[in-house]
Amino acid sequence: MTLNNDRRIGRYAVLLLISEDPKETKDSIERLGWRACSGKVGSMEASKVVAAIETAARKNDIVQTGLYRESHALYHAIIEALQGVTRGQVQLGSVLRTVGLRFAVVRGKPYNNSEEGEWIAVSLYGTIGAPIKGAEHETIGMGINHI
Amino acid sequence: MTLNNDRRIGRYAVLLLISEDPKETKDSIERLGWRACSGKVGSMEASKVVAAIETAARKNDIVQTGLYRESHALYHAIIEALQGVTRGQVQLGSVLRTVGLRFAVVRGKPYNNSEEGEWIAVSLYGTIGAPIKGAEHETIGMGINHI
Amino acid sequence: MTLNNDRRIGRYAVLLLISEDPKETKDSIERLGWRACSGKVGSMEASKVVAAIETAARKNDIVQTGLYRESHALYHAIIEALQGVTRGQVQLGSVLRTVGLRFAVVRGKPYNNSEEGEWIAVSLYGTIGAPIKGAEHETIGMGINHI
Amino acid sequence: MTLNNDRRIGRYAVLLLISEDPKETKDSIERLGWRACSGKVGSMEASKVVAAIETAARKNDIVQTGLYRESHALYHAIIEALQGVTRGQVQLGSVLRTVGLRFAVVRGKPYNNSEEGEWIAVSLYGTIGAPIKGAEHETIGMGINHI
Amino acid sequence: MTLNNDRRIGRYAVLLLISEDPKETKDSIERLGWRACSGKVGSMEASKVVAAIETAARKNDIVQTGLYRESHALYHAIIEALQGVTRGQVQLGSVLRTVGLRFAVVRGKPYNNSEEGEWIAVSLYGTIGAPIKGAEHETIGMGINHI
Amino acid sequence: MTLNNDRRIGRYAVLLLISEDPKETKDSIERLGWRACSGKVGSMEASKVVAAIETAARKNDIVQTGLYRESHALYHAIIEALQGVTRGQVQLGSVLRTVGLRFAVVRGKPYNNSEEGEWIAVSLYGTIGAPIKGAEHETIGMGINHI
Repeated sequence: MTLNNDRRIGRYAVLLLISEDPKETKDSIERLGWRACSGKVGSMEASKVVAAIETAARKNDIVQTGLYRESHALYHAIIEALQGVTRGQVQLGSVLRTVGLRFAVVRGKPYNNSEEGEWIAVSLYGTIGAPIKGAEHETIGMGINHI
Repeated sequence: MTLNNDRRIGRYAVLLLISEDPKETKDSIERLGWRACSGKVGSMEASKVVAAIETAARKNDIVQTGLYRESHALYHAIIEALQGVTRGQVQLGSVLRTVGLRFAVVRGKPYNNSEEGEWIAVSLYGTIGAPIKGAEHETIGMGINHI
Repeated sequence: MTLNNDRRIGRYAVLLLISEDPKETKDSIERLGWRACSGKVGSMEASKVVAAIETAARKNDIVQTGLYRESHALYHAIIEALQGVTRGQVQLGSVLRTVGLRFAVVRGKPYNNSEEGEWIAVSLYGTIGAPIKGAEHETIGMGINHI
Repeated sequence: MTLNNDRRIGRYAVLLLISEDPKETKDSIERLGWRACSGKVGSMEASKVVAAIETAARKNDIVQTGLYRESHALYHAIIEALQGVTRGQVQLGSVLRTVGLRFAVVRGKPYNNSEEGEWIAVSLYGTIGAPIKGAEHETIGMGINHI
Repeated sequence: MTLNNDRRIGRYAVLLLISEDPKETKDSIERLGWRACSGKVGSMEASKVVAAIETAARKNDIVQTGLYRESHALYHAIIEALQGVTRGQVQLGSVLRTVGLRFAVVRGKPYNNSEEGEWIAVSLYGTIGAPIKGAEHETIGMGINHI
Repeated sequence: MTLNNDRRIGRYAVLLLISEDPKETKDSIERLGWRACSGKVGSMEASKVVAAIETAARKNDIVQTGLYRESHALYHAIIEALQGVTRGQVQLGSVLRTVGLRFAVVRGKPYNNSEEGEWIAVSLYGTIGAPIKGAEHETIGMGINHI
């Protein structure tokens, strides 16, 4: 039942965004036979961040298009990641701030017990701040869900 | 005014916790002349997580003991990091969950413009879950504040 | 002072939306001399849900138009019901989700002690999900206030 | 992919708690081949509400003991239901209020498309108020998750 | 229906706590025939703040003991005031902070239209901070409800 | 380290908005050699409230234009003040309510120990309610940050 140290799905999702050598992380993920994708999104609207991640996850076959079960798992992982990014209120433009984010989605089996099945990790890393160039600091978030 | 790419304070704080080679991260931080510390805390009480980080930051001279200004900056960075960890309610035992976390605190000057002065980053990485061994998944959080 | 079992105003408000025989619920409400109304609203904007319920409550004389006291009681009951529906952030389109809801408003005296006066219950039941047909699950919420 | 009208899992979970004839609801659930349980809990501690539901769900084989995947699905459904009950802050005694609740857990397949698989619904209904007899009103909550 | 400028109940409640001459404020309140009380409470537990205000309001006949309707109005005004004080999470000791507060409760008719009836205002002013002498800054909050 | 009684920066910020004699408050602030400004904003959008205060603070040299450090301190103080105003969700039009507010920003040294340096207080006072004339009650908020 324990989380396997070499299969820390959330850590991989974050390393894809911030490690010196994301290629190495990608290789580790592929060696495990897992699927992953990453991308970029900048917006004053949280809904656009959600949409960008959902679209990328579908296009890259991380989740199955048309299967609500998988979209539901992904959606909640995204919202949880956004809570780390926004720290308190999942709001951007409505409180006059904007984000420039890179995102990654990883799907795999992080537990030793195979019955624990597949899980999904969504990570976000980038900047949050005023809609003025440079008036921003870093931000991070991660959501994990069974899928 | 822009955030300097080699001085991404939040990224360093997270890499201290999740990179393959934290020593390398530590060296980079020291080369910049910045201060950092890290540690571990496991608890069902958020207040113990706060206290562990505050104590470590004071003992390692990341913040000046007895100067409220610095404690205030650190406290808000900790709470923001906890919001990423808890995703919604900064509550642990009161909603029957527990955390096992590693934390890092980094203090430095992330901006090109020296007038932007010092900032502090608090990162958290570990597991959150039920108070049952193995019933847990990963979690991350980061808070950044001017100091 | 105790809540009367046959006058459970919140239960009636919910049964109006989900029971096999809402007519029976309506009859019970009328036998008590209480007022009730119900309706439908689908939107990606929480403000439209609020407006639809307020308009229905005024048109059906559940609250008195132009009396802020009563609008205030109703408003807070609506927001509390929306918190059950949204579970965490009273946000819809801004986090890329939509609702299809039926609502009911009941006004009456649920307590044995007549001095406890009138109370208002707002109930919501329907679906919440992505703006894609079928990508949705059920949701419920109820708010109760003195009026 | 659409939610089947006769398989509204959330509605069944709520009817188990508030309908005139819960036996009829129970029969409908069993005819679908689904599993359900219900129980009671009163407390000033949210953690006790969580524990009571988790224990009942395990004892009644709604979720598999020792399988974190299922506990995780149940836990989030419980917390979502508690958000409807508490409307804003998942806090009870810490803000000087208490609950007397009945709960139900239903596990089944609410969608026409069999690939959507199993889902779990947690419902809560009862009273919330001051720790003084009678100083309370009704409250409801429901959480739904894929399992 | 408009709020009367000389009857700004919330402003009076705050002035009772922060004006140079609270006696003058008290006189203005009495000239209007309204009731008010004030007091002090320091605690790491939000529930003790709630209890102190409720007890004072009952002892000073601002609300009628044993009438839930009035306790309900008061309770929600207190929680709203605490949200201003805590700014985000109605939590004190659980996130390692403490408050030293003065509170006031005012009951009166702030609207020109007499049908708008009585309203209650709860104000809080004092300090919030770490449980270390001097490591604190000011905080304020106000809640208003119909009663 | 203690907060100086004659330098209660938050109290001054609130008195600028609600005292009988704001001129007297302004004089006290100036005698301390502090800077302050005030203004008005009415909107259904929280972002416009944030923008109005930021603009006023820059125009009146309370914060230095182009220095993110100071904007960051001001921004968080504004959001904290808005949490007192909105009590739960920093949302206005999206939950069908509007505000008419006066705001003040004060910058000074509230602590005896000069090393505690400068702090900033943002206060808000006015009305919140439905977008219907008169359907509103008072609201207050204050945020304090080191700068």
